Amino acid sequence: AGPVAAAVVRELRCMCLTTTPGIHPKMISDLQVLSAGPQCSKVEVIATLKSGQEVCLDPKAPVIKKIIQKILDSGNKKN
Amino acid sequence: AGPVAAAVVRELRCMCLTTTPGIHPKMISDLQVLSAGPQCSKVEVIATLKSGQEVCLDPKAPVIKKIIQKILDSGNKKN
Repeated sequence: AGPVAAAVVRELRCMCLTTTPGIHPKMISDLQVLSAGPQCSKVEVIATLKSGQEVCLDPKAPVIKKIIQKILDSGNKKN
Repeated sequence: AGPVAAAVVRELRCMCLTTTPGIHPKMISDLQVLSAGPQCSKVEVIATLKSGQEVCLDPKAPVIKKIIQKILDSGNKKN
């Protein structure tokens, strides 16, 4: 295939090969929920940890909803 | 300040100035939930639309949980 403008075309394949269990909400700074689509036929959840590391989580794991709930509810941090 | 390795240091400020209401889950391909932290003292929710456009959503809006729920439940797409 010809040269592809990497910045424009998102990786045309799934990002997560395996998922990491047992990630505690407190370790997570960002969470990305990627819906199934042309690039990948399954939903993917990618967490960026406070350490900067990125891990894939199992979208079906009940803890995901708790993690998202916790982040959304943490609201404004009093600094 | 000295030259900063942009790739390493995430934008040290909030990404969302305003939020966009009335975004339908079907329009969304990815959702990013950024917890409050050193870079920004409030939770931010950034949706990438299927059009490629990025919009900020109100983390307190009840629809957010529905959107996330819908994406998580959409599971494997039959193609």
